[in-house]
Amino acid sequence: MAESFPLPVFHSGAPLYDQLYRHIAGAIQSGALSPGAKLPSKRRMCALAGVSMSTVETAYSLLAAEGYVLAKPRSGYVCADLLPPAPGLAVPPVRAADPTPSRWAFDCSTSSVDVSAFPFSSWARITKEAVYENPGLLQRGHPQGDEPLRAALASLLAQYRGVRCDPEQIVVGAGADYLLSLLLQLLPEQRAVALEDPGYPAAYAAATLHGRQAVPLPVDGEGMCPEALADSGAGLAYVTPSHQFPLGVTMPVGRRSRLLHWAASAPDRWIIEDDYDSEFRWSSRPIPAMQGLDRAGRVVYLGTFSRSIAPAIRVAYLILPRPLLERYRSTFSHGACTVSRFEQESLRRFLVQGLYGRHLRRTGNLYRKKCALFTGALSNIPGASISGAEGGLHFLLTLPRFTEEELVARAAEKSVRVHPLSRYCHAAPPRLSTVVLGFAGLGMEEIGRAAELLREAWA
Amino acid sequence: MAESFPLPVFHSGAPLYDQLYRHIAGAIQSGALSPGAKLPSKRRMCALAGVSMSTVETAYSLLAAEGYVLAKPRSGYVCADLLPPAPGLAVPPVRAADPTPSRWAFDCSTSSVDVSAFPFSSWARITKEAVYENPGLLQRGHPQGDEPLRAALASLLAQYRGVRCDPEQIVVGAGADYLLSLLLQLLPEQRAVALEDPGYPAAYAAATLHGRQAVPLPVDGEGMCPEALADSGAGLAYVTPSHQFPLGVTMPVGRRSRLLHWAASAPDRWIIEDDYDSEFRWSSRPIPAMQGLDRAGRVVYLGTFSRSIAPAIRVAYLILPRPLLERYRSTFSHGACTVSRFEQESLRRFLVQGLYGRHLRRTGNLYRKKCALFTGALSNIPGASISGAEGGLHFLLTLPRFTEEELVARAAEKSVRVHPLSRYCHAAPPRLSTVVLGFAGLGMEEIGRAAELLREAWA
Repeated sequence: MAESFPLPVFHSGAPLYDQLYRHIAGAIQSGALSPGAKLPSKRRMCALAGVSMSTVETAYSLLAAEGYVLAKPRSGYVCADLLPPAPGLAVPPVRAADPTPSRWAFDCSTSSVDVSAFPFSSWARITKEAVYENPGLLQRGHPQGDEPLRAALASLLAQYRGVRCDPEQIVVGAGADYLLSLLLQLLPEQRAVALEDPGYPAAYAAATLHGRQAVPLPVDGEGMCPEALADSGAGLAYVTPSHQFPLGVTMPVGRRSRLLHWAASAPDRWIIEDDYDSEFRWSSRPIPAMQGLDRAGRVVYLGTFSRSIAPAIRVAYLILPRPLLERYRSTFSHGACTVSRFEQESLRRFLVQGLYGRHLRRTGNLYRKKCALFTGALSNIPGASISGAEGGLHFLLTLPRFTEEELVARAAEKSVRVHPLSRYCHAAPPRLSTVVLGFAGLGMEEIGRAAELLREAWA
Repeated sequence: MAESFPLPVFHSGAPLYDQLYRHIAGAIQSGALSPGAKLPSKRRMCALAGVSMSTVETAYSLLAAEGYVLAKPRSGYVCADLLPPAPGLAVPPVRAADPTPSRWAFDCSTSSVDVSAFPFSSWARITKEAVYENPGLLQRGHPQGDEPLRAALASLLAQYRGVRCDPEQIVVGAGADYLLSLLLQLLPEQRAVALEDPGYPAAYAAATLHGRQAVPLPVDGEGMCPEALADSGAGLAYVTPSHQFPLGVTMPVGRRSRLLHWAASAPDRWIIEDDYDSEFRWSSRPIPAMQGLDRAGRVVYLGTFSRSIAPAIRVAYLILPRPLLERYRSTFSHGACTVSRFEQESLRRFLVQGLYGRHLRRTGNLYRKKCALFTGALSNIPGASISGAEGGLHFLLTLPRFTEEELVARAAEKSVRVHPLSRYCHAAPPRLSTVVLGFAGLGMEEIGRAAELLREAWA
């Protein structure tokens, strides 16, 4: 056996023990070495392969550790009886889905922010300090997020959003979509979820993914219609009262009150208040959150920094009413928080050092100017009407002499990307001739040029 | 009306417009101002309240924006018809769940790591550079994680773990538990999940949370029993072949092959290979992953940096076989990656600059010494036997003259926290008289003292 033992051709690209190990393992796997066959003794293998004893010992011990060979007392190493490899399947290659770089001259998508205003040097300093000054943060933290960050959030939200909560009600997590998913897991009895139509696609996707019925409800000039909600049979409603996505409607306090009454009038009714884009309001200061009006403990508040700081900052938070907090703790108490503790500490410093407030003021001014510039430049297109521009980072433009498809196609011919409103519509008949225009990711000059192209496109 | 209008008592703690706004909003909400009642004209209010016109204008526009009042042409502002606040519920206060600081002198839990070896200055430098040098990272990235990090992971895993994959098969996410949850969402047809017993509690929790049947299967000296798996009716098996949690067993290649055959022999069978603790192996080098042996594309590989770097680093990754990659992309393509792009870039730099390899070698040596010290110091307890100490950051100790409860209680009397093995057991009858001892979070000196206390406790 030993004389005919198949030997590897050594090369310089890997350690010798590894090459020897792989060679023998491959021979056993392929059947070239049969079950029960003996390996050459270690000393013999040294001579055969021309390698050192430590090389052979390492290779043999790996083969034994992984079960390719069995070490038998007094007879050395024998090959194990392995099943042949399970047959391979012919699997079609997956299409390359890495997004191709944008071919658009101007992309008016709604998900960008202006990164030019980001305080890079402050953030870099803060992250470095957060690492240096907090070695304890390397260990596992609180599943809801670290208490100092939650305390800073509670204080910030009381001040900016009229939210009333204890830090212990806050759950920090890696993005609003993740927290929405967590919330659905927390409410398994809610088989139907009432959603705004048109509305946020990720909320529809989350409901469907968790096996719930997504019930699209119409949005009027004040937000989700309470009559439709009452008739829907749903016990869980997802709303964006500060700045309805995508219509840009702000829900007045009367409508908020009616939704709160709906929730309080039966057990197990909940409202998810996604406070998306509430930081940016041009016509007046931001409107306080529904959560602060809720006496019955039925509103789950959902906030995120992905717009107010940057999409890269994957920090969002839920504020759970106390009955749901109990439920959360009995269900999820084993898990770890999904946000790096260093990033939590960086964000906390950003908040308490006043950098966040300064950043909001600076970007708010910037976005206000961009919004005014873009809407001003487009409003003189004959027949065009603009809506939803009182706040947030996008608005709608309606131009009845074209269909929605025509508006999108004509813009695309000028290499300007705009989204049709129907993209966000479900059961509702799409409002024809309306497109959604995001402006946050474009510079002032770019907005001027994009507007010029759109005026030509839609002339 | 105007003469009897309720006026606020102004104080210096908030802007005047805000105090005026809150006062009137409160009066409307409480019914002190009835629906249809007129507000004093702006000029009149200036005089009544003794404030400037801009203060009144700001307060009135807020009230109008939020729907507390309606602006009627030529008759000014009238109070809206609001529902009274929904009644409050008496909700019991939630028990404070913020974990109380450890009262143990020595905590032998399995979830700690040694942070003394963490390269703080390198990590701080890298995170700072990652922010400074990559402003583009503020925008939304690839939902699977940024390509450069995935490429670095693919190359690292090929080298260290024998994993074969393209970067496009990798999904980066905020922790192993999160990714396990995502995977279950991707496999809704898998109603039953086969799990190791004893096994990782979070895997059981995830299965239950997603409404699946958790099927506990026995673990023998080679890992999950293939006969039990074949009989279980499950189509999805979760295994920890590198270092079974908590028994510490390594699955030999023959057993791996049998599980792969099980998966390949029917459609819709999948194996989740959680490669937990594979980086730390004391008796030989780390054993290559099952994923690298899988020809049929049925293994989903799950890896994390929470042990090999730190629990605070919330970066884990899945490697999806191509059929599941297709499914993932059609289901989850809308979402954003749950890991901050700055943290992704920091980790990439840590990997490609060779700092990770150096860190693994350094911590590996440290943990090897700790393991040897702790097992050595405990092995001379008469009747004690130690198992699962060939790798990983914990081992088992069995001492038949005490029950498991006695072992835990006697250790607790000495202020040493150890976990009973039965904590991780489900259907399997608990092995009596066995405790799980983690050592990573204890220093060398602490291990010496903890071992001394345990020898006294279990004498």
